Amino acid sequence: MRTLPLSKVYHLIEPGPVVLLSTMRHGKPNIMPMSWHMMVEFEPPLVACIVSGANFSFNALNETGECVIAIPPVRIARKVVQAGNCHGDAVDKFAAIGFTAVPARKIQCSLIAECFANLECKVVDRKLVSSYDLFILEVKKAWIDPDRKNSKTIHHRGHGKFAIDGRIVSLPSKMR
Amino acid sequence: MRTLPLSKVYHLIEPGPVVLLSTMRHGKPNIMPMSWHMMVEFEPPLVACIVSGANFSFNALNETGECVIAIPPVRIARKVVQAGNCHGDAVDKFAAIGFTAVPARKIQCSLIAECFANLECKVVDRKLVSSYDLFILEVKKAWIDPDRKNSKTIHHRGHGKFAIDGRIVSLPSKMR
Repeated sequence: MRTLPLSKVYHLIEPGPVVLLSTMRHGKPNIMPMSWHMMVEFEPPLVACIVSGANFSFNALNETGECVIAIPPVRIARKVVQAGNCHGDAVDKFAAIGFTAVPARKIQCSLIAECFANLECKVVDRKLVSSYDLFILEVKKAWIDPDRKNSKTIHHRGHGKFAIDGRIVSLPSKMR
Repeated sequence: MRTLPLSKVYHLIEPGPVVLLSTMRHGKPNIMPMSWHMMVEFEPPLVACIVSGANFSFNALNETGECVIAIPPVRIARKVVQAGNCHGDAVDKFAAIGFTAVPARKIQCSLIAECFANLECKVVDRKLVSSYDLFILEVKKAWIDPDRKNSKTIHHRGHGKFAIDGRIVSLPSKMR
């Protein structure tokens, strides 16, 4: 994994892939799949996400204010779905599903080696947590595997149906 | 266009497609492409989005509290990019680019006939507008063209590169 410039983080989040949220609480790691997220600012990169109070990850994120957003390639789609099929209070999903934890640089949560990109994040705004479980995160450090940087991702269409990235087209804008 | 049950709106937004935002201000319609959006709640469906104050659409959305989120099929990707290549204060993008305006049912903004789905929205929360240009919208009415409901969409990867939906896979979850 190499450092990805923070100005390029939106390239990863803006297309709307399913991501994995890695958290750590009382030394206990957890993972959940997440699709309700969006970019909020280019640089420093801000990301909004919804982590429901019904999820075991909610308390970890809310209390520690830290998480990793990891972006899984299509190759591990089954593991991603598995991570949503069990509860973090009952099992260590890293061990049970076969994800490899790698220490992060700026926070306590773990990067996920099987993911081609990992974003170390801190919660910077909780104003909409009580109303919508909506967190604003700042990406403090970004990592990418240069050999897998063009990995295809998955996009959830509901009820376990996923669109896999197909062809890439270039339609440059004249603006920005 | 037929009515889409509001409980199915997340099927359209969660995969993260580029959408078109249709607004209306002082009788003047406008369109902008948008990729910074996410689901916030299933039903009634809430959607968060970032509409920068630098965009001509910002004042229309902020003052009227209304918009349509229209979902373009890959077939009209060039028109979508064109909509981001000109300013709504200089041209009527519907006329200039060739989008067909269709009256909405619950709001004043126009649906876009070339899009396979259209969501009539009202702003329900402005708490994060001043900090991040972040609006919370409630979808009040949803429309889908049954003949085009499986349209492939486009996902922006930055600098005018777009991933087009490829294969669809089914990996059902045991939860929810």
